[in-house]
Amino acid sequence: MKTTGGSAEQKRRAGEKAVEYVSDGDIVGLGTGSTAAAAIDALGDAVAAGYDIHGVPTSFATRDRAIEAGIPLTRIEVVDHIDVAIDGSDEINNNLTLIKGGGAAHAREKVIDATADQFIVVADESKLVETLSEPVPVSTLPMAQKPVKRRLDSLGATTTLRSATMKDGPVITDNGNIVFDCAFGHIENAEALAKSLAEIPGTVAHGLFVNLADIACIGTENGTNVYHGDQDQGQN
Amino acid sequence: MKTTGGSAEQKRRAGEKAVEYVSDGDIVGLGTGSTAAAAIDALGDAVAAGYDIHGVPTSFATRDRAIEAGIPLTRIEVVDHIDVAIDGSDEINNNLTLIKGGGAAHAREKVIDATADQFIVVADESKLVETLSEPVPVSTLPMAQKPVKRRLDSLGATTTLRSATMKDGPVITDNGNIVFDCAFGHIENAEALAKSLAEIPGTVAHGLFVNLADIACIGTENGTNVYHGDQDQGQN
Repeated sequence: MKTTGGSAEQKRRAGEKAVEYVSDGDIVGLGTGSTAAAAIDALGDAVAAGYDIHGVPTSFATRDRAIEAGIPLTRIEVVDHIDVAIDGSDEINNNLTLIKGGGAAHAREKVIDATADQFIVVADESKLVETLSEPVPVSTLPMAQKPVKRRLDSLGATTTLRSATMKDGPVITDNGNIVFDCAFGHIENAEALAKSLAEIPGTVAHGLFVNLADIACIGTENGTNVYHGDQDQGQN
Repeated sequence: MKTTGGSAEQKRRAGEKAVEYVSDGDIVGLGTGSTAAAAIDALGDAVAAGYDIHGVPTSFATRDRAIEAGIPLTRIEVVDHIDVAIDGSDEINNNLTLIKGGGAAHAREKVIDATADQFIVVADESKLVETLSEPVPVSTLPMAQKPVKRRLDSLGATTTLRSATMKDGPVITDNGNIVFDCAFGHIENAEALAKSLAEIPGTVAHGLFVNLADIACIGTENGTNVYHGDQDQGQN
């Protein structure tokens, strides 16, 4: 996982840039992780300055962070749309295909990010890569652990059941599932791999986000780079 | 749902026929529903006659039925393979594509049926159709209820959240999820629809079983028809 890579300053810049895409009155999907947390803090500043927005958290951790930041919350269970989602990523390529799930929140993140009219991914520049190669997290029904592992292996992955460190046994997601981290090496065709992972009986969600991100705000040493899904790029 | 169609006699014949494919020493996936239950009873007779088999149940209900029938049980969590799975279906077409999930056990059923070296579907003849048209059950993370419903609607389905009758609110599956019953009318391309359903963020398992069943044992008025995935047919 690269979730701890990159400087706090770069993450802060990325988060603040993303918040510029939020309008007064918006319902905002709130991602999980250290860079999304920077955006949550910046959103809290916007609320303090008078913005009437409501956040939809993607995890327990994010809910608590948003409450601390003073963002009024609502729930994916009650809203009919989300205007903007801001979420981090473990890796991003130049098509804005993502690998997410270092925080094991990718099932809820994907539902919320995919629901948003506009999904803005935030990251420091260490997350930008030419070819995706981080392990892909695949959350799985606990009863399906063995058959799913066999199928992941047969797709060419080196699979590791993610172990918890503050409890015995595996990490359990907020939805009650287990997580396999699947190293495929360089991923040349993320779209095909995403379809294969989705079709395995017993998988619940995988960390490949294909054709979901609209904009990437990337914090750098000197500022923020903004990339659009159509590969346009502006320096800021 | 057609789960209550067909005579008990036809179901019994189908279940008994399927058990002929079980060998001494096998690990056997045990399906859910009234026809699978007939197979479980027949397997219990085989155990009483000296067969050393172990069953892998697909649901709470099946586990209890198998215990009653005297079948030693094991679990999908511990076995490295399953020799044969025997499971029912709400609809079967002549490619042996199935719609399952009237009993809301399709997530576990699919994991176990797909794991088996040989998957035998059992049904009475009322389940055989030219074109699949039963509503397709789609189990879904509870938090994703609204976004998943919108996507199912956009695929052309008339979707109904399955309500419980012996508790308030929706049916909750053995895995803690909700179920949408999705009427698509006549399903001309089950394989494409299956891929689309699997890719919706927030879905856990759907009731289309494509390229999984190897053999169908169909109980009729006079006996059993056996169909193979390659369309061969033998009367018995």
